[in-house]
Formats: sequence, C-alpha cells, structure tokens
Amino acid sequence: MQSQQSSTLLDDAVLEFAKLPGIGKKTALRLVLHLLRQSEEDVEGFSNAILNLRQNILYCKVCHNISDTEICGICSDKSRDETTICVVETIKDVMAIENTQQYRGLYHVLGGIISPMNGIGPSDLEINSLIERVNAGVIKEVIFALSTTMEGDTTCFYLFRKLASSSVKMTILARGVAVGDELEYADEVTLGRSIVNRMPLEYQK
Amino acid sequence: MQSQQSSTLLDDAVLEFAKLPGIGKKTALRLVLHLLRQSEEDVEGFSNAILNLRQNILYCKVCHNISDTEICGICSDKSRDETTICVVETIKDVMAIENTQQYRGLYHVLGGIISPMNGIGPSDLEINSLIERVNAGVIKEVIFALSTTMEGDTTCFYLFRKLASSSVKMTILARGVAVGDELEYADEVTLGRSIVNRMPLEYQK
Repeated sequence: MQSQQSSTLLDDAVLEFAKLPGIGKKTALRLVLHLLRQSEEDVEGFSNAILNLRQNILYCKVCHNISDTEICGICSDKSRDETTICVVETIKDVMAIENTQQYRGLYHVLGGIISPMNGIGPSDLEINSLIERVNAGVIKEVIFALSTTMEGDTTCFYLFRKLASSSVKMTILARGVAVGDELEYADEVTLGRSIVNRMPLEYQK
Repeated sequence: MQSQQSSTLLDDAVLEFAKLPGIGKKTALRLVLHLLRQSEEDVEGFSNAILNLRQNILYCKVCHNISDTEICGICSDKSRDETTICVVETIKDVMAIENTQQYRGLYHVLGGIISPMNGIGPSDLEINSLIERVNAGVIKEVIFALSTTMEGDTTCFYLFRKLASSSVKMTILARGVAVGDELEYADEVTLGRSIVNRMPLEYQK
C-alpha cells in the first residue's frame, strides 16, 4: 500500500502501529481509523496506559517477574509456598502457569534461555540470583518449567549442574501426550516417553 | 484469560489494546509485552504519534477528507481536474481510489451513507456542502463511488434527486464481473448486469 499523501499525522500513526508484531499496514490503518473515531479522552487513555506502563513498570527484585512494586504480588503473598520455586523463561510463562491455578509456590524468571545461536549465554540470564536464592536455604524444590526444546534442555542441564551441590530437589514438568490429543497425531518422541513414564491408573474407589 | 494479578499497569495497557477492533486479550498481551521490550523513546514515539493524530488531525473544509491542513493536499493540488468530483462514503474509500492511480479529479467524503436502520439520515452526512460545491458551477461531473448495497443505492438515488436540477453530469462506477473472478462463482445479479452492460471489445490494431 502506498503512503497516504493526505496526512503525515495519519502516516506516522499507521507506521508506528505497523511496527507491532503481526500488524501489517492494512490492519494498522484500520486500527488508527478506529482510534480517530473515538473521543479524545479515550485516545488519551490508550496512549497514556502504554506510556505509563513502559515508564513505571518494575521488575520484582526477587523473582524478576513484572510488577508495580519492588517485590511482586506473588513473592510478597505469605499464603504461597515459599519452599518451592518454579523456574521459567519469561513473564508470559508465569501468567500461563498462574492461569492453571495448580501451583502455589514462587517463581524465578530467567529472562530467556541459553541459546548460543542467538548469542544468549548464562551470563545474560538471571541465573546467579537463582543460585543465591537456592543457597539461602529456604527452598526445598526447584521446578524447571522450560521449553521442551534443545535450548530448554541445555538450560535445564546447565542449571542442574550449577545447583547439584545444593541439597535442593529438582524436578521438571511431566512430558506426555497432551490432553485432548489423538495418539495417531502425537509425535514419536513424546509418545515413546509417555510409555516409558506411564502412570498407575487411579480412580476414586 | 484471567486478570494478571502481578501488575495493574500491565492490565490497564492490555485492556486498552483489547478495546481495538479485532484485537483479543491474548493478542493485546502479546503487543503490550512487545512494547515493554522496546526502548522508552520508541514507546514514547508510538504513544505520541497516536495522541498527536487524534489531537491535531483536521478535516479538509472542502472535501472533508482527513488532512493536516485546512484544505487537503488533493483539493489544493492544482494539477488535478477540479471539474470532476468523486463522492465517497469514508476517507478509506479516498485512499482506495487514490491507490488505483486512475483518478485525477477531486473528492467529496460524505462521512457515511443513508441508513435508516442505523439511524443515519441525509442531515448526518456532508450532503449540503456537496450541493453547494456543485452549485458553485465549476464542477461538470459527479461520480458516485458508493457501496453497491441497498444503502448505497438509496444514497445514490437521494443525491441524484438533489442534484437533478443542476446541469452536472452524474455517473456511477461500472458494475460487472471483478477482474480475476471465475464466471461460475459470480453472483447472478452482477453477471446479469455485466451482460446487459457489455462493452465493445477493443484491441490496439
């Protein structure tokens, strides 16, 4: 699509929207024209919410999760189990696990994953602070909830070696056939592992 | 998806994004997290471009197209044919026609279409200013480039009646089979009209 000669203001706004991932020029134009039809207060609200977020957001000093305060809501929640830490790559993973409502421990956000291809080494991640937390002695179990990819496994192995000297219990997420999957379409590695790690059938008697 | 308890700043930004048409909460979160990873200047640029647009945008006094100035670039372009006006519903239609590079006349943006179902009557549209422009005497041809729907046809008929007393030539866009369409899938009305309005075959000899 060509530039709209009628307004540079419009062009600028469309270009800014089109920088967002997954938003092309046509969608950007549609969104901008939508905002143009809204009241000035609404557009101010939109604009300010984004600017406020970027300028005022903090990262929890303990777990490096996104937070409005120095210590995030999860770390400062006394009802949670502070002896268990779930190690994740990004804040999105924290949200995903929180949404399951199956976990009541704390988190540790690495901020990425060891990936030599992308130039990300252990020193770029929040690994030292994890070791410090574990060495403080309160933590009994560390759950590695990392991607089941080569990079995830590498990171997992690296952390395992780093924490091996401590007496902490280390676990990883169960691998197996996803709920709702048809066996026919499950990949061989997953299916193979789910046979090796088969579980006792348990029904309420 | 539940609210993310860890940050109200994040929640606010996600909610604002999710108000945009076609953007759900998951996409909104993805976009907001993307913005969080950008530099503060980039996010300010994004935020300001939108606010600037909404606060400073003007509508051309002549054709009601979007504009940075009182008279838009198209109306003030002396190289364009000022004897022809193309009547369209929205500024998006101006962009669409401009992108064809087949039209060198001026425009008139009605700002909508007569639609009793949506409570939009002739008085809600820029019809009086169109009549004034036509009555000024310079214009020789008015092209109605409205939707080929009941509302579009109604608006077209209304404008035709309003302008019938003037000596201006009135035309509508050609209806017919779209370029690239297979006849098999063309609808009956379109195909019927394209037979009635068949055109002489012309090749360069």
